Amino acid sequence: MKKIILTGDRPTGPLHLGHYVGSLQNRVKLQSEYNQYVLIADAQALTDYYENPEHVRKNVEQVALDYLAVGIDPKQSTIFIQSQVPELFELTFYFMNLVTVARLERNPTLKDEIRQKNMKDSIPAGFFTYPVSQAADILAFKADLVPVGEDQQPMIEQTNEIARRFHHLYKTEIFHDVKAMIGTTGRLTGIDGKAKMSKSLGNAIYLGDTPNELKKKVNAMYTDPNHLKVEDPGTVEGHVPFTFLDVFDPNKTEVEALKEHYRRGGLGDGVLKKRILEILEAEIAPMRQRREQYAKDMGYVKEILRSGTEAARNVAAQTLSDVKKAMGIVY
Amino acid sequence: MKKIILTGDRPTGPLHLGHYVGSLQNRVKLQSEYNQYVLIADAQALTDYYENPEHVRKNVEQVALDYLAVGIDPKQSTIFIQSQVPELFELTFYFMNLVTVARLERNPTLKDEIRQKNMKDSIPAGFFTYPVSQAADILAFKADLVPVGEDQQPMIEQTNEIARRFHHLYKTEIFHDVKAMIGTTGRLTGIDGKAKMSKSLGNAIYLGDTPNELKKKVNAMYTDPNHLKVEDPGTVEGHVPFTFLDVFDPNKTEVEALKEHYRRGGLGDGVLKKRILEILEAEIAPMRQRREQYAKDMGYVKEILRSGTEAARNVAAQTLSDVKKAMGIVY
Repeated sequence: MKKIILTGDRPTGPLHLGHYVGSLQNRVKLQSEYNQYVLIADAQALTDYYENPEHVRKNVEQVALDYLAVGIDPKQSTIFIQSQVPELFELTFYFMNLVTVARLERNPTLKDEIRQKNMKDSIPAGFFTYPVSQAADILAFKADLVPVGEDQQPMIEQTNEIARRFHHLYKTEIFHDVKAMIGTTGRLTGIDGKAKMSKSLGNAIYLGDTPNELKKKVNAMYTDPNHLKVEDPGTVEGHVPFTFLDVFDPNKTEVEALKEHYRRGGLGDGVLKKRILEILEAEIAPMRQRREQYAKDMGYVKEILRSGTEAARNVAAQTLSDVKKAMGIVY
Repeated sequence: MKKIILTGDRPTGPLHLGHYVGSLQNRVKLQSEYNQYVLIADAQALTDYYENPEHVRKNVEQVALDYLAVGIDPKQSTIFIQSQVPELFELTFYFMNLVTVARLERNPTLKDEIRQKNMKDSIPAGFFTYPVSQAADILAFKADLVPVGEDQQPMIEQTNEIARRFHHLYKTEIFHDVKAMIGTTGRLTGIDGKAKMSKSLGNAIYLGDTPNELKKKVNAMYTDPNHLKVEDPGTVEGHVPFTFLDVFDPNKTEVEALKEHYRRGGLGDGVLKKRILEILEAEIAPMRQRREQYAKDMGYVKEILRSGTEAARNVAAQTLSDVKKAMGIVY
């Protein structure tokens, strides 16, 4: 039997190249080998965006389009909308009894996010407990593998703790041990070179960018501010076109030669930007095309979401039934 | 239109005379005047009894029998099982975003319970957030009134806060303002005279007690330990038969006369116990009879629960639909 993967995104904005190299690319590769569930986590996004649910709702379809654009195949992967699988809320409720408040307070990922978002004394209870909801998502599909960034590993530990506690308390073995699948590619930097690519920092290249938008963004990429004339020696570290070439250029030998040339002087930024633009355009063009195809028939996209969600519901309902049987709360 | 009442109990044990005078009696009176929902809060009980769900499950039917025994009429009141109304979990999930962790930490009822149960650093997240789940129960039925003990009033405030925040954020007015209906009868003391009647203290008279059990408990009632001979003067304060006569004896003048007699000496405890036994037996006998009738046909009791739960689900589903529409998370 195929192993099960659960993966997904919070629909809070269009997906960008950072998502692609960090995760989407991998999903396309894995979907034939694994039984892959792709969750559009709108309910989880609301724990953060509850003041603007419209924003989340709008992005659900956009994220679905991004998935289809990169080549996630609805015949191989089950794409579904979290809020439309009510069994997940019920599982969350029961799992909440198996985690202490103190344990949530110690969760490093949660701690970081609370600090980053500057929540302090106004942490919504829904946000504070989202690791439990995330565990419910994973356990509902009895996932074996969850692709995550390194910073998300504590979430997988939390999930396994809940599963083990459930097994121990209710003398059962219904869940699989979940393994984090840490991506090999680190986080892609943004075009400003300052931080990782992110919508909120305005430094992202979106999978849906037009050729013109892409060109503008590549031209705006941060290079070496001290590299004033072509003949000047330049610094490669933090040079965004080089960072991108490291990730996207298949010809690593040529990239190394270019770096050497740049260091000793005589290589202009324009050449490098042209090279990376061509590579990115070649990467994005087929996505853009697929995206346009699907966008013409949103009824079909909705049908993909509807049938994916239905399939996901059936699986989650079976797990919920197993959970309730194990707990003996069947009437 | 009739106003709506939500009331109920956690099915953690059989109901006793304390429940009767504090609440059940009132429900029987109110059911014709109000649209009354009676919740058997098994899911909430699990936030505390998650290590022993079987205990909760078993008590669901027992509590239903108690309801029917005291005269709650399934034709007038909607009796339902919380865990069988999944819409409540979904509402809880969305309401969790509208309450901060700090606000829950300040909830006086919750603080008291955490101290009483000596939970300290091992507060289950499900227990910590149960005020939100309780608010979901109340708001799901758009209740106007919730009969509570004085110590539960902060829960009503919490519920109204969530409703107001929901209205404000999502520009809607779907919930009613909830009022606490504080009972006139204080908490009934246990037969040991030390604390309020409670299953865990073993000082309770159950609504299902046999005549023999009732007699034994009345005989065991705490009186005045210094009242050794009948002719000795006695103390009325803390004297359990007198406490019960104050509550259950309709003839207050006679009770006052008896107290005076007891104080000056010459009145034996046996006389008082006999009097309260007769009154309690007259109160409990019809309950016992109704209980036996229903217990003979548990299929019928289950059918009452099934159809009550179905009716409750329809109402909760409508509210959930209103909530999702207001939030704009309809796909």
